[in-house]
Amino acid sequence: MAATLHSYIAGDWYAAPDEGRPLPDATTGAEVARISRQGIDAAVVLRHARQVGGPALRDLTFHQRAGLLKALGKHLAAHTDEFHTLSTRTGATRRDCALDVDGGIGVLFVYASKGAKELPEGRFLPDGDMEPIGRQGTFAIRHVHVPRQGAAVQINAFNFPVWGMLEKLAPALLAGMPSVVKPAGQTAYLTELVFRRIVESGILPEGSVQLVCAPPDGILDALTGQDLLSVTGSAATARTLRGHPNVAGRAVRFNAEADSLNCAVLGPDAIPGTPEFDLFTRTLVTEMTVKAGQKCTAIRRALVPAGLIDDVQEAVSAELAGVRVGNPADPTVTMGPLAGLGQREEVLRALKELTAAARVVHGDPHRFEVVDADRERGAFLPPLLLRCDDPDRAEPHEIEAFGPVSTLLPYDGTPAHAVALAARGEGSLVGSIVTHDPGFARETVLGAAPWHGRLLLLDRTDAAESTGHGSPLPHAVHGGPGRAGGGEELGGIRSVLHHMQRTAVQGPPATLSTLTGPDPIATTDLQGGE
Amino acid sequence: MAATLHSYIAGDWYAAPDEGRPLPDATTGAEVARISRQGIDAAVVLRHARQVGGPALRDLTFHQRAGLLKALGKHLAAHTDEFHTLSTRTGATRRDCALDVDGGIGVLFVYASKGAKELPEGRFLPDGDMEPIGRQGTFAIRHVHVPRQGAAVQINAFNFPVWGMLEKLAPALLAGMPSVVKPAGQTAYLTELVFRRIVESGILPEGSVQLVCAPPDGILDALTGQDLLSVTGSAATARTLRGHPNVAGRAVRFNAEADSLNCAVLGPDAIPGTPEFDLFTRTLVTEMTVKAGQKCTAIRRALVPAGLIDDVQEAVSAELAGVRVGNPADPTVTMGPLAGLGQREEVLRALKELTAAARVVHGDPHRFEVVDADRERGAFLPPLLLRCDDPDRAEPHEIEAFGPVSTLLPYDGTPAHAVALAARGEGSLVGSIVTHDPGFARETVLGAAPWHGRLLLLDRTDAAESTGHGSPLPHAVHGGPGRAGGGEELGGIRSVLHHMQRTAVQGPPATLSTLTGPDPIATTDLQGGE
Repeated sequence: MAATLHSYIAGDWYAAPDEGRPLPDATTGAEVARISRQGIDAAVVLRHARQVGGPALRDLTFHQRAGLLKALGKHLAAHTDEFHTLSTRTGATRRDCALDVDGGIGVLFVYASKGAKELPEGRFLPDGDMEPIGRQGTFAIRHVHVPRQGAAVQINAFNFPVWGMLEKLAPALLAGMPSVVKPAGQTAYLTELVFRRIVESGILPEGSVQLVCAPPDGILDALTGQDLLSVTGSAATARTLRGHPNVAGRAVRFNAEADSLNCAVLGPDAIPGTPEFDLFTRTLVTEMTVKAGQKCTAIRRALVPAGLIDDVQEAVSAELAGVRVGNPADPTVTMGPLAGLGQREEVLRALKELTAAARVVHGDPHRFEVVDADRERGAFLPPLLLRCDDPDRAEPHEIEAFGPVSTLLPYDGTPAHAVALAARGEGSLVGSIVTHDPGFARETVLGAAPWHGRLLLLDRTDAAESTGHGSPLPHAVHGGPGRAGGGEELGGIRSVLHHMQRTAVQGPPATLSTLTGPDPIATTDLQGGE
Repeated sequence: MAATLHSYIAGDWYAAPDEGRPLPDATTGAEVARISRQGIDAAVVLRHARQVGGPALRDLTFHQRAGLLKALGKHLAAHTDEFHTLSTRTGATRRDCALDVDGGIGVLFVYASKGAKELPEGRFLPDGDMEPIGRQGTFAIRHVHVPRQGAAVQINAFNFPVWGMLEKLAPALLAGMPSVVKPAGQTAYLTELVFRRIVESGILPEGSVQLVCAPPDGILDALTGQDLLSVTGSAATARTLRGHPNVAGRAVRFNAEADSLNCAVLGPDAIPGTPEFDLFTRTLVTEMTVKAGQKCTAIRRALVPAGLIDDVQEAVSAELAGVRVGNPADPTVTMGPLAGLGQREEVLRALKELTAAARVVHGDPHRFEVVDADRERGAFLPPLLLRCDDPDRAEPHEIEAFGPVSTLLPYDGTPAHAVALAARGEGSLVGSIVTHDPGFARETVLGAAPWHGRLLLLDRTDAAESTGHGSPLPHAVHGGPGRAGGGEELGGIRSVLHHMQRTAVQGPPATLSTLTGPDPIATTDLQGGE
């Protein structure tokens, strides 16, 4: 029997008293680790974050915290090999590993750099200019951001066990807020390994990060208006947590990033033979197969001018035919299994609902080749391309199959129709517009923006350097309205501010200047009462 | 029988079919108007806002919308006399009227000015600089704010029937978002009068504002992720609305401004005889008596160095003895009645709870003089000063008497203790620090900031021009963490952005420039699909 994962609580590794439940290898079903079923005491965790981690972090300046992130990034980068090896057991191919592990470490470096360059050498951040109110110049207003004095409780999803943790940790640490990391069970063993390396490094002040590999009993009931609850997961999970009586009742700051029915729009100019046609095809195939489509940013709806839909279907199918599904440790394999058999069941259930409106035009979930693995023990599925010729049907806009599944939908070739269909998703993390027509690009971007947290314009001029549809960059906001959760992560310093309280200070301009000038409080104890 | 208030829905005044319930004059109990008990169809209201008001507003540039606000401010300013006259019936003295009516119109002018000066002549707003990502310069990120394509549903409180409406309308209109105004019943007749003048002016595009003087049946269930629900009221109301299954479930953008247990801190330097001692005393009396203490920003907790508490009690009591309670139409009256008999009952109930920990040191709710009015018919109370010598008791930090009631609490004279007690309110809209000691000011402001949306530093140098503890300025954020609702209103352009979606756009820098340069879309149809 594999070992039960430990939690890291109040400065110690904590072994759960129970044997827990097994966490199977995505490819073989063999037990990788076990995770406790017994709850830990959330009060202990939160008290340690608030009384030890928070004061220690707030005692540092932004630049000092940025230095911690940089040191941590370097330390973890020295361990990527072991992370990659373990990552394979989650079903990740080499390419998937890089997104999760290297991508996560990259977030630390970007935040280290932005913290040093874009934040002052102090402990709080002025917001906007000083604004005089009186005519005599004796009274003015200045807004400042100060760290919230609670904990950032981070509920992560199973699909990015490393990136998901680090992209939430980085802005919290930079803001001066201690974190409580709650990984999703399926892949928590990889999060635990990375967390061990973090703790061993001794880089972060004690209490600034804790790990909960167990049900965090009562944590929602123990949160206050100084805490932040940050959630990545399904729309249903986000809904439940946001509506929790204590979370809603005490105005706990809440941030959700939920799966959404992201779209990609092909411009009418992008006919076969153009670079954009090929870019669209390749992007769609990439988004279907990376992480076996288990990405909240994956393209679920491919909006294609009606006259081009047969061409797109043919080109995408041809490329999908070259996808090798199988053991992610095999370097010739281009798509691994889903994270587990439960995930596969869910995808098949959603697929069934989708096929009420759409037909499968490529792939058969019950007949496909698997390389170097057992199709029954591993959570394998082939890429499945669907087509729905009536874009007004509700299903493709509402039902998410969280796997290698996308649906082709026709539109009339106008920005207005593309935008109207994009909006049917009721809020998405990201959308791509693939066109070389600047007018089409502009109208579609501005029309679709209210429903998106991020939009990618892709054409022959930026393709070489484009970071792609599915990859949230630390520089860009990650999150979207409505179904996508209504939150914002990353976006550089923008997400740091979500961990702070913005306060308007009114008073004599001279006093406000000493409050909000550069490093005015290097010798001042910033700790408020607990 | 007085007339039943009308709603303004889908371009028409709508008379409710029922007789409704009476809305009594706060001073005499005489019926001023009636308000319908029968719900209106929220679907009709929202459809009109989304399909008519939103497109009309979004078709205008920021500067054009700013122009509308200015014209509207001028139009309403020409009608202040009739507003003041009717305002008296809500219990408002001349001073109270000015805050509500003139203060509300002032918000329109400030937003008109800020819109013209601080926003571009275009329809969306770039956020931050363009950020190149690739080394070749072919790929970059730019963030933009675009108007959300839903409705701003505004639930207002009874205490500011004019300001409450206008301070929410102004940023929504400037952002390009249509509003649905839901006044609180007690004082809705004044909101309706002002709204009639708005409609008559013909200044605003049809559909950009609607008024609902009735229960808005089903409106919460009809909101989507493009809508905004903005609430002013009790913490309990905010909790219920935020946790509503559809509001939480669809990530409706939510903003609450809730009553809080605001504090004022007297610095240990401010001994009797100093200007600061007098400023503190006067501020406390003002905050207890303006609007008869029915302000969510009123000082509920006066934190005073233990050695000064007797002096403060004496000075405040002496000044309170000069307060004349009675008919607000009488120019010698300095404090009117509460808004209604129900409010008085609630204050007396809270007072009873408070007196488990505190004693009343000035005022007797059952024995006081009333000028030119009937003490039984009007919702009168005298100012009531309480004192709680044990500042660790829970009651003064948790129980709000929403009337002319404040409690003196001793602290040890250190910033740390003042901050610790301030934080016991678990989040406040505003706090004041009255001191001429810059060190005390700095430490207390920085320590207390995480628990406050606004802090006022008051001393001899800024007192003449200070806008005071209780008055939210359009320039400063109004809202606070935790118990204060966790939201932000006003704050200049900051609240405009809460009505917009921030979207990261990635693509070729040249295309991003045409998207985000000055007035790039003057000829482009921005309307997305509905």
